[in-house]
Amino acid sequence: MSVANHKVLITDTTLRDAHQSLIATRLKTDDMIVLAKQIDSIGFFSVEAWGGATFDSSIRYLAEDPWERLQLLKQELTRTPIQMLLRGQNLVGYRHYPDDVVDKFVEQAYKNGVDIFRVFDALNDIRNMTESMKMVKKMGAHLQGTISYTTSPVHSTEKFIQMAEELYALDCDSICIKDMAGLIMPDAARDLIRGIKDAIDIKVDLHSHSTSGIAPMSYQAAVEAGVDILDTAMSPFALGTSQPPTESVVAALKGTPRDTGIDLLALRDVRNTCRSLREKYQGLLNPISERVDSDVLIYQLPGGMISNLVSQLQEQDALERMPEVYQEIPRVREDLGYPPLVTPTSQIVGTQAVMNVLLGGERYRNVTKEVKDYVRGLYGRSPAPISEKIKKLIIGDEPVITVRPADLLEPVYEKMKTQAVADGLVRKEEDVLTYILYPAIAPSFLRGERKVEEIPVPQKPSSAPVEIPRSMEVEVDGEIFNVRIISIEGSATAVAVPAGEKIPRGEIKGGVKSNMQGMVLEVAVRRGEEVKKGDVLLVLEAMKMENPIHSPVDGKVSEIFVDVGDVVQNGDVLMVVE
Amino acid sequence: MSVANHKVLITDTTLRDAHQSLIATRLKTDDMIVLAKQIDSIGFFSVEAWGGATFDSSIRYLAEDPWERLQLLKQELTRTPIQMLLRGQNLVGYRHYPDDVVDKFVEQAYKNGVDIFRVFDALNDIRNMTESMKMVKKMGAHLQGTISYTTSPVHSTEKFIQMAEELYALDCDSICIKDMAGLIMPDAARDLIRGIKDAIDIKVDLHSHSTSGIAPMSYQAAVEAGVDILDTAMSPFALGTSQPPTESVVAALKGTPRDTGIDLLALRDVRNTCRSLREKYQGLLNPISERVDSDVLIYQLPGGMISNLVSQLQEQDALERMPEVYQEIPRVREDLGYPPLVTPTSQIVGTQAVMNVLLGGERYRNVTKEVKDYVRGLYGRSPAPISEKIKKLIIGDEPVITVRPADLLEPVYEKMKTQAVADGLVRKEEDVLTYILYPAIAPSFLRGERKVEEIPVPQKPSSAPVEIPRSMEVEVDGEIFNVRIISIEGSATAVAVPAGEKIPRGEIKGGVKSNMQGMVLEVAVRRGEEVKKGDVLLVLEAMKMENPIHSPVDGKVSEIFVDVGDVVQNGDVLMVVE
Repeated sequence: MSVANHKVLITDTTLRDAHQSLIATRLKTDDMIVLAKQIDSIGFFSVEAWGGATFDSSIRYLAEDPWERLQLLKQELTRTPIQMLLRGQNLVGYRHYPDDVVDKFVEQAYKNGVDIFRVFDALNDIRNMTESMKMVKKMGAHLQGTISYTTSPVHSTEKFIQMAEELYALDCDSICIKDMAGLIMPDAARDLIRGIKDAIDIKVDLHSHSTSGIAPMSYQAAVEAGVDILDTAMSPFALGTSQPPTESVVAALKGTPRDTGIDLLALRDVRNTCRSLREKYQGLLNPISERVDSDVLIYQLPGGMISNLVSQLQEQDALERMPEVYQEIPRVREDLGYPPLVTPTSQIVGTQAVMNVLLGGERYRNVTKEVKDYVRGLYGRSPAPISEKIKKLIIGDEPVITVRPADLLEPVYEKMKTQAVADGLVRKEEDVLTYILYPAIAPSFLRGERKVEEIPVPQKPSSAPVEIPRSMEVEVDGEIFNVRIISIEGSATAVAVPAGEKIPRGEIKGGVKSNMQGMVLEVAVRRGEEVKKGDVLLVLEAMKMENPIHSPVDGKVSEIFVDVGDVVQNGDVLMVVE
Repeated sequence: MSVANHKVLITDTTLRDAHQSLIATRLKTDDMIVLAKQIDSIGFFSVEAWGGATFDSSIRYLAEDPWERLQLLKQELTRTPIQMLLRGQNLVGYRHYPDDVVDKFVEQAYKNGVDIFRVFDALNDIRNMTESMKMVKKMGAHLQGTISYTTSPVHSTEKFIQMAEELYALDCDSICIKDMAGLIMPDAARDLIRGIKDAIDIKVDLHSHSTSGIAPMSYQAAVEAGVDILDTAMSPFALGTSQPPTESVVAALKGTPRDTGIDLLALRDVRNTCRSLREKYQGLLNPISERVDSDVLIYQLPGGMISNLVSQLQEQDALERMPEVYQEIPRVREDLGYPPLVTPTSQIVGTQAVMNVLLGGERYRNVTKEVKDYVRGLYGRSPAPISEKIKKLIIGDEPVITVRPADLLEPVYEKMKTQAVADGLVRKEEDVLTYILYPAIAPSFLRGERKVEEIPVPQKPSSAPVEIPRSMEVEVDGEIFNVRIISIEGSATAVAVPAGEKIPRGEIKGGVKSNMQGMVLEVAVRRGEEVKKGDVLLVLEAMKMENPIHSPVDGKVSEIFVDVGDVVQNGDVLMVVE
């Protein structure tokens, strides 16, 4: 065994994965800039600060331009490379884009400041990564090829090492082991890292999440195995579904042959800033995300996936069927050829498992569009082949594609650019990409019409609105009366409806309600249209999946309360069918 | 290097250290019993469930008999050994007891159900451990000798290994490395464990705290170094100032040569119970205890010590002097011969550092009783000798003892038993020990007069009580009525006045207030007595230290609101001096 004695490099994820994992990707650019200033002098190998869900979140919730954010970060991070997470052919979206869009995106990301591109594919189908990888190399940037880590009967240390070799052959500058669910065990981490280091001469990065409480142990095993780079987050945004703490890893290696060379006292200033940011964003922190979730260890599901399943079942008033869903998920995953469970496959597998359980009797009686597309090969090659029986069950005799999915996509960049320019949406070239990636939100965003989401105020008793009781018994001069309060200081007491909201809630005759929080992707009917029970009325995007809302009855659409791009809550009345 | 391939044993601390670390040692016996039932079948090496602060807390706050608790636990834990933490000659208190008390205590602890005794001394002065160790062996119980881990210029791996050898020679059955501040680094853990295992043939246990986020990494290094036992806590009571999670450690080793053999699914049931207990005790959880405290890494102070310092400085309205205190602590520690910072030395060093900073100019102008006793040798031998200059400064020409401190203590058991029996306090032999250990609280406890402390309700807006005025004057058509509200929405309005509280708060002329939360140990004056400015009026026990409260003026004691044993809050008026 070779003993590693080179210093461990640190990729700090506070500006990307940490806030994506803990506070719903809501860190604002202004706050990032303050942090970036301090972080720049620390001596990190890189700062992960862009990509992943940050693009989506900044236009959708913060009304902030992700490109401008990148430029501003670049001004502060003059010494530390900026790293982004790129979902291969999916870029920073949830579906495959044509190659011309991929090329333009990588080019613009590089020009605006990204130095290191971490490229991955949910299925580890390298064909979905090649176009972006080629472009990263063409730009002269650092290319980090990624292994989406998972465990299954068809995944093994040997196969992952083989994938690392393939990535190496494709000219990657480093390899990332991306353990999005925090599943990698210390021994597995050691074997995989040693295996890669023995096979090829390349820097290896371990990226894990503390969801199951194991990541710090695996990091230690990784250090001993000679890992080159560890992904960590500043302690106020560390642990739970985020990464292990930067300060702890730095301190643990201090004075050893693998010392990171980072100064703990300097980190303390960054920590203090992070601590006040944590206060600021407190209302977004879910304590659940911060606890060790040992179910992850038993069911091998990413933490976020479990909470999605819980809310899906709650909506259906079927939470008691969770154990069956836990049983069903591995079966669906096996049926689909053991995809790693990461966006979008975690949602695809989870939702189908829920449907298989809730609809009872026959599995796959109802199949989501995404599962069909998956079986059709439109997400790429599954890790194991899908059996003929399952194929038949899900897509009948439809053909399965065997080419790289993006080979079927026509170039769209110039066409959509023309369209966006005609609509007056383009002020800089990058806006075209924003438009292509998020066609539902981009128009309102680029027109400056999107509202900035408020950070929810953490619930404190002092700020809780006082609920005045509406009925009481009172004694007046010795006599007892029943009192009902009709109004207080001129306002009626009972009406709790947030006024001015155009989307109604509560019971409305014929009202079709949303059973989830999501964004309206498509309204499929018009006012006055006749619909049949089961017809698709509209499509919501929730949990990164398209969820059709069906008509519960035969009837006529008499009211439509939502538009494309609206965010709706569970219980909102979307339309009326009478 | 030898490769360990025997299974790792687990000591679960949920019933002792975990709740001591996270919820102020408040877990009630009833809840422990429910947990113990489930835990017994898991297959832990042992369950730490008694000793440490649990004895104090159960009589002081819960009005529960620690001896009965032990008996009840023993009924449930029929397969799993019960382990206790014994503070050497301090037993479960904060000062040295005579040997006859030590013998009786160990005997009764064993008879009532303790199988494994973890014995430590804050100064690693083995002379303070020998009496209890001898007795543990005499009883035939498992003796775990303990190294209080710390770092300093006079502590080293070699010296700790030497101490392990001494403990081994004293017939210990296993050795615990007790890292109470979570300071042990992975490399240090590995070197120390390997060193001990190479030197002697004995089981080694690593006990650490996740305060600094490093414990899971050190546990991994310990596993690779061949550690025999790891201390862990169930995930809802793990991490932060508590231990690493049991489930994570079990899962991390699953399928490896060091597999614990514990079933994760069985642990899930225990976890679910712990989760609901966590809900129940939510109001006691301080989020700060659950975060990684990277200051621990810089200042090498136990987490709990830092928060004590903060509150001490806040009381003095001098929080801005914290950086000076941080500078002063290592100097005081050096002056005192580098004691490990653990109860009671952490309080002794911390309080003196605060005094040295706040009183300005001359260090040690004011010296606490504890520091004087420490320098006199009454706590045992300091790790490094104390310089003549410091000795002179602190105790002048007073002699320093060189014998074992307990050699100076006369037997007291029979004398105090007679006294307790005469006072009608003794219903079983164990009550005598309760009386000897906690003379201030035991009488009211043994008489059944102590109130059970309520678990504070976590603040939630939904449950915040609405304060409705209960009486008002209203004008109806020009006529004025007196209105008293009898009931609201069916329920009678609560009388919210804290009736019958004898200790006043707020501004009272001549009032002497408590500047801390603590228990009255001694009232040094009588009503009507004349006092001078600076005279000791009473002594509070807080942070396990005796804190004298001095008269702020010359005057006469006109009122005394407190008795020995009362718990007072910061701001309570203790007496009036006019």
